[in-house]
Amino acid sequence: TAAMAPILLNCLGNDRKEYLEETFHVNNPNLDGMEEDILYHFSLGTKTHNLPEMFGDIKFVCVGGSAKRMKAFAQFIHTELNLPGSNDEPKDICEATDRYCMYKVGPVLSMSHGMGVPSISIMLHELIKLLHHAHCRDVVLFRLGTSGGVGLAPGTVVVSEKALDYNFLPQFEQVVLGKVIMRSTELDAGVSRELLQCSKELPNLPAVIGNTMCTNDFYEGQGRLDGALCSFSHAEKLEYLQRAYEAGVRNIEMESTVFAAMCRVCGLKAAVVCVTLLNRFDGDQITSPEDVLVEYQQRPQVLVAHYIKKRLALIALTPP
Amino acid sequence: TAAMAPILLNCLGNDRKEYLEETFHVNNPNLDGMEEDILYHFSLGTKTHNLPEMFGDIKFVCVGGSAKRMKAFAQFIHTELNLPGSNDEPKDICEATDRYCMYKVGPVLSMSHGMGVPSISIMLHELIKLLHHAHCRDVVLFRLGTSGGVGLAPGTVVVSEKALDYNFLPQFEQVVLGKVIMRSTELDAGVSRELLQCSKELPNLPAVIGNTMCTNDFYEGQGRLDGALCSFSHAEKLEYLQRAYEAGVRNIEMESTVFAAMCRVCGLKAAVVCVTLLNRFDGDQITSPEDVLVEYQQRPQVLVAHYIKKRLALIALTPP
Repeated sequence: TAAMAPILLNCLGNDRKEYLEETFHVNNPNLDGMEEDILYHFSLGTKTHNLPEMFGDIKFVCVGGSAKRMKAFAQFIHTELNLPGSNDEPKDICEATDRYCMYKVGPVLSMSHGMGVPSISIMLHELIKLLHHAHCRDVVLFRLGTSGGVGLAPGTVVVSEKALDYNFLPQFEQVVLGKVIMRSTELDAGVSRELLQCSKELPNLPAVIGNTMCTNDFYEGQGRLDGALCSFSHAEKLEYLQRAYEAGVRNIEMESTVFAAMCRVCGLKAAVVCVTLLNRFDGDQITSPEDVLVEYQQRPQVLVAHYIKKRLALIALTPP
Repeated sequence: TAAMAPILLNCLGNDRKEYLEETFHVNNPNLDGMEEDILYHFSLGTKTHNLPEMFGDIKFVCVGGSAKRMKAFAQFIHTELNLPGSNDEPKDICEATDRYCMYKVGPVLSMSHGMGVPSISIMLHELIKLLHHAHCRDVVLFRLGTSGGVGLAPGTVVVSEKALDYNFLPQFEQVVLGKVIMRSTELDAGVSRELLQCSKELPNLPAVIGNTMCTNDFYEGQGRLDGALCSFSHAEKLEYLQRAYEAGVRNIEMESTVFAAMCRVCGLKAAVVCVTLLNRFDGDQITSPEDVLVEYQQRPQVLVAHYIKKRLALIALTPP
């Protein structure tokens, strides 16, 4: 890691410059010269679909791992925004593929991204291209997820300050043509603060701001003792979790670093809002009853819906 | 990478010793002492389900990224094995969750694993535990996937000799409690040879044995010029693909290294069989018509079904 420091600083420098421009942009000069852009994993394309008409009014993109959960969020936000029409069977815009699901509800896009960094990375590349082709402006992205808690009561919502790698560093390691580069994983501090404020306005929504560790697997990488492979002791697990806690880590999940890094490079405001399903100091298996887990998983949705409603009220009040 | 060589050799040494025992085993002394093991991402558990009764007779596990494709494979293998009953609506054993789908067809398990190393890694941990709890013996695992070809005509099936990382090395980098360890990604040479032989017995099934590169993303890591981010030229892309070709790489996908590594550590025979959807020297976008792509994606299924039928005929001929 020490050897990578110069690369890191160099890349953060570049990213920061781009970020300060504060306009959303793809970082690929090739795109606008392409005759057609097929968003393969969405089953959408610039020739087959009118992307500006379909998506041009989007202001909020909410993503999460599970297809069922993001369909439920589409139905929930439809009710919360008092939109006309039925929300019984929202249409999956990506129904021609089973890679992801996608629902549009007024200015809100609700999408699933599967599990892990590579899966959400494919989704983000094609989502950011979609927002570009559709000429969207001032979009905020939210990841609404589940996670393992580190020293928190189950059901606590963690709004991520920074996404950290397994060394507790705020960076994402990206391979480009066989070379490793580092990208910063800082998130939008303003949106995080507003989300924490929103949590205080809601009943039954315990929330904290803390760091989120992102790993590439659920078992050995997160120090679980119950995988098919395990070569460490209970004491070594606790020692690692304790070091994570001391680095400000309050939860562990599997997508936040690349989500933060890609949004940051493209000048998109982003927040990560994950509920904890267990306290990893107390165990590894998720043993809460189904109805309790379902209620926990609604908490990030309730919080982000509240934020979106406040924002839309503000937009409505602002003269054009 | 040079600094990691001692770790690599050390780990390969351990893994090889375990592999030579040639019996399938989980590598976790904690498991058998657990009162209950919840396979959370499958919605199965040792207390709630009779795993030996449900899964004890499994001999072949076929996994692939797409849920729709693995459902189609379940229907296809049902017909191919002349099993009784209807295959119109196979039952998804994991229907209580949307993380993966799972179908059992006689001695064959067909499962989806989503996209990318972390997604298939969660599936493999819980699958290997399932096979362990169910007391399965002599199981062979196949990954049936899609990939980008390197110097091959689209539609060619690649049976992987080795799974390589982005440096073209046959190793998988696993983080355990914040430390990087390396695992070997060699696959079963015998099964691969038999699969190549099977391909020669089938019409319209062009197949080769070659190395498979596994990456953590679909765009920058595979040298695509059409992602949301791209910082390299067409010439640099071609130079990287050329180096891959010279290292024996014939296709690129996103799951093979961890699949090979985990199966190897647990003494499970494994093969990777992926069809190429395009030749990456010629382009990045997948532009073939839908019906052509569907036929390509059936090729690994046809090949592995043929292998399974030959194997079952052999088992039937062998005295107990």
